Amino acid sequence: MDPVGFYFDFGSPYGYLASKRIDGTAKRHGREVAWHAFLVGAAVKITGSASLFEQPLRGDYTIHDMHRFARLQGVPLKAPATLPVHSLAASRAYYWLFDQDAALAKAFANAVFDAIWGEGRDLSSPEAVAEVAASQGVDAKALLAAISSQPVKDRLREAIEAAMAKGVFGSPYFLVDGEGFWGVDRLDQVERWLETGGW
Amino acid sequence: MDPVGFYFDFGSPYGYLASKRIDGTAKRHGREVAWHAFLVGAAVKITGSASLFEQPLRGDYTIHDMHRFARLQGVPLKAPATLPVHSLAASRAYYWLFDQDAALAKAFANAVFDAIWGEGRDLSSPEAVAEVAASQGVDAKALLAAISSQPVKDRLREAIEAAMAKGVFGSPYFLVDGEGFWGVDRLDQVERWLETGGW
Repeated sequence: MDPVGFYFDFGSPYGYLASKRIDGTAKRHGREVAWHAFLVGAAVKITGSASLFEQPLRGDYTIHDMHRFARLQGVPLKAPATLPVHSLAASRAYYWLFDQDAALAKAFANAVFDAIWGEGRDLSSPEAVAEVAASQGVDAKALLAAISSQPVKDRLREAIEAAMAKGVFGSPYFLVDGEGFWGVDRLDQVERWLETGGW
Repeated sequence: MDPVGFYFDFGSPYGYLASKRIDGTAKRHGREVAWHAFLVGAAVKITGSASLFEQPLRGDYTIHDMHRFARLQGVPLKAPATLPVHSLAASRAYYWLFDQDAALAKAFANAVFDAIWGEGRDLSSPEAVAEVAASQGVDAKALLAAISSQPVKDRLREAIEAAMAKGVFGSPYFLVDGEGFWGVDRLDQVERWLETGGW
């Protein structure tokens, strides 16, 4: 059986909340999860919709909702001082690591999510991303060199294009046997789809 | 105990899906529901985000998702040929009826939702709205005269401004003792909030 596709933007608090649950959800139904970093900003150029945080009314609601959601889920959440979060450097680092060691890339992704949304740290700079990677045993200098190189930039761009070709446009987004689900609030439906094979 | 506020746009399929559940959800916790017609378009002027149906990728996803959601909920859903739906006439009629008879207004609201999203009928014109109202025993001529009158136009505008002053910007939107929830996918949290008094 194919793995569940989990597409996330490190800048998305709902992506962070989903990251805490998706592996368990899939495992209950004998599935693995393929984690894919994604930049919602790339899709925004097409959908025309700005970050929720940049929208009056919706931005305030989102800040309230994400905290309430996290409390209900029992997950720590502290918003960074500057929103929206810029996740380009972390996303490039993710794919550079992934091509070497998928398990390490996933540990790095969890560490990035925890730093940004669990601790409210600013991970917009390559240096801050390298620091988190170093805590996972990654060579910081090698990472900084890699994520400013053209092949790694292209690697991320191609990953985003491949995701969008599958219909991905938001974070989190789940793909279960070709069926797409958008939003952490669709995780119950994702689980039911895994359980029943669809409806 | 205060009623649960249920804000909906007749043009919103998720508002339609929520309309089938909110009374039951509230009743289980000894609450009434106050139904409020709302025009998301009025909030869009502030949030800057177009209708989901007008956004590439998101529009296609929404059409797929609303059908899947309706099947899961066991509610008939047939999309109108023209999207987004224009709900101005129906919303004006709602408040005109509400000020005479709240129960009749709610029966009318259900009939409008069923016509638009259950049967896929085009209710953008005042005449089509009057036809639905007539099926509820309302005088069609009186309704047509009323919804083109300034006091009824003002009544809707004021209702929308009052809703937005409480933070409402989307459909469906729920207010439980001052706590706002956006989206049919927050109904489980609405129920838990009613049950626990919040977290």
